[in-house]
Amino acid sequence: MTDSNKPASAEDSLIARYFRPLATDPGAFDLGDDAAILKAAGEDIVVTTDAVVEGVHFLADDPPDTVARKALRVNLSDLAAKGATPAGFVLTLALRAADDGWLRPFARALGEDAQHFGCPLLGGDTVSTPGPLMISITAFGRVPSGKMVHRSGAKPGDRVVVTGTIGDAALGLDVLRHGAATAVLADDAAATEMLVARYRIPQPRTGLAKAMRDHAHAAMDVSDGLAGDLAKLCDVSGVSAVIDAPSIPLSAAAATAVARGAVGIETLVSGGDDYEILCAVPESSFDAFAQGAAIAGVALSSIGTIIAGTSVPKFLDAQGRAIVLPRVSYSHF
Amino acid sequence: MTDSNKPASAEDSLIARYFRPLATDPGAFDLGDDAAILKAAGEDIVVTTDAVVEGVHFLADDPPDTVARKALRVNLSDLAAKGATPAGFVLTLALRAADDGWLRPFARALGEDAQHFGCPLLGGDTVSTPGPLMISITAFGRVPSGKMVHRSGAKPGDRVVVTGTIGDAALGLDVLRHGAATAVLADDAAATEMLVARYRIPQPRTGLAKAMRDHAHAAMDVSDGLAGDLAKLCDVSGVSAVIDAPSIPLSAAAATAVARGAVGIETLVSGGDDYEILCAVPESSFDAFAQGAAIAGVALSSIGTIIAGTSVPKFLDAQGRAIVLPRVSYSHF
Repeated sequence: MTDSNKPASAEDSLIARYFRPLATDPGAFDLGDDAAILKAAGEDIVVTTDAVVEGVHFLADDPPDTVARKALRVNLSDLAAKGATPAGFVLTLALRAADDGWLRPFARALGEDAQHFGCPLLGGDTVSTPGPLMISITAFGRVPSGKMVHRSGAKPGDRVVVTGTIGDAALGLDVLRHGAATAVLADDAAATEMLVARYRIPQPRTGLAKAMRDHAHAAMDVSDGLAGDLAKLCDVSGVSAVIDAPSIPLSAAAATAVARGAVGIETLVSGGDDYEILCAVPESSFDAFAQGAAIAGVALSSIGTIIAGTSVPKFLDAQGRAIVLPRVSYSHF
Repeated sequence: MTDSNKPASAEDSLIARYFRPLATDPGAFDLGDDAAILKAAGEDIVVTTDAVVEGVHFLADDPPDTVARKALRVNLSDLAAKGATPAGFVLTLALRAADDGWLRPFARALGEDAQHFGCPLLGGDTVSTPGPLMISITAFGRVPSGKMVHRSGAKPGDRVVVTGTIGDAALGLDVLRHGAATAVLADDAAATEMLVARYRIPQPRTGLAKAMRDHAHAAMDVSDGLAGDLAKLCDVSGVSAVIDAPSIPLSAAAATAVARGAVGIETLVSGGDDYEILCAVPESSFDAFAQGAAIAGVALSSIGTIIAGTSVPKFLDAQGRAIVLPRVSYSHF
């Protein structure tokens, strides 16, 4: 809106310039209305919301494009774990200033991810804040009626399964903070770069949604640490679990960091930001589930078994001894 | 979760204690899952999102109960303007600390409003921030398929109609900041109290939703100032408007503030936070619309007429002269 007759506030211009191109869904009305429409043809709408705060979930000097991708992907990760196909999202952006140099790459990357994951921008709110940047996203997905995968529902005998690798993001954050992992991986720039990328840009397992719906008894995404998140899943399912720690999938970089003594497995399973899927899959469905994962190109690892009981899940080392976990999971308070 | 065997983080406890009681909808799964389900039986889901930031949308010493009500009601106001019946909301709460003395009254008031307006909590995210408090809400409503009322659609000849009274919230903020209105209303404690309440606790016109759907050509809620918001509505509708300023509904307190010279009408129509509905209603439907409003107990005022053209809407004084507006509307940047 450059016509001087028109009421173009800086806020309107910002939205028009950077975010209107992302609003590709007809229900977004080109961001020119006060609300969006989400159509639901007999399906259930799955709703999830996750915010990222500068200095808490991302670092002040993280590139704007990775901040955008992380903000959206942490929500897409929830949808994938619930078996939902992405349908769209709304964005609340709290900014200190309308800085074109930051907003341009932020919006471009957000748009690329929105297109890639089939999750268009439906609406939003842009507010000023004197405080840290904050991006709050509410994302929507669709599942056939009644088919959302819950946290509860794990049953004794189910396999405990995770996607991808665990602990990379915690190591990436450690590297960015010049922690213990930095020195032991100093000779391997590719490894440190990969770990930092894992912290900054989660890989939501969107392709696994259908297999999740079809086969998983219970699931959640691992955002606050595998140990703590498994404890939550077991708690609401009224079960416990035994995990074979050597079966926990580690990247080569993480395995090196462990082998060189920078961190122990207990740190990797307590770190946050993995954004992998943790699920309980009955033995009878495991082969079909694995086949679905293979088609989607998502790596799976069986790491243990759901058992009866209400005790906190046990992590056993190669000698079958329980590993002491220093901290169950990340908490904001 | 007080069982010491269980993984009760401070964050989980906070959610369980304060927010689980608000999650009365079965689709919220007692806030024990990673996502909520919104059922849509052939209706359209209307989605709106609005955030409030301490120091920007509310003051640091505003009572927590009014902060809660404002955060939810600014969203309910959008739903009402779109003709949507509230269905639920998700909440992102960015807190500096988990302060029970603040959270208890905040959650209680939020729960009262959620119940009163039939808009249960479906889910949320609680994050820590070093910066100002921020509450971001995404609210959902339902309309019969295709029946959302848009910003666009106003036609020449339509009446321009507003609910309630205009400018009270801007005056209430002025009073809280010890501005010009404070002195001229110093002899009337009830008036200043009312104005402050209008700033802190918007009154969403939820009861008008059906009449909006049935009769309005176009609508939006007035959040950034009547003049600027009318300009936006006209812009997207491809029309203009002429407003009879003396017809703009003022509360007795606002009328007194104007009569005593503390503010002019140009300030009141440029101030924010009214959260009244602005709409364009065809002459042929006006009586039926007014009847619907009367049944809902919502006051209506016809303040002007939509005309052809693309110029910025004119506000005329009692002598028919155009009033000069100092600032079209509030912008965050």
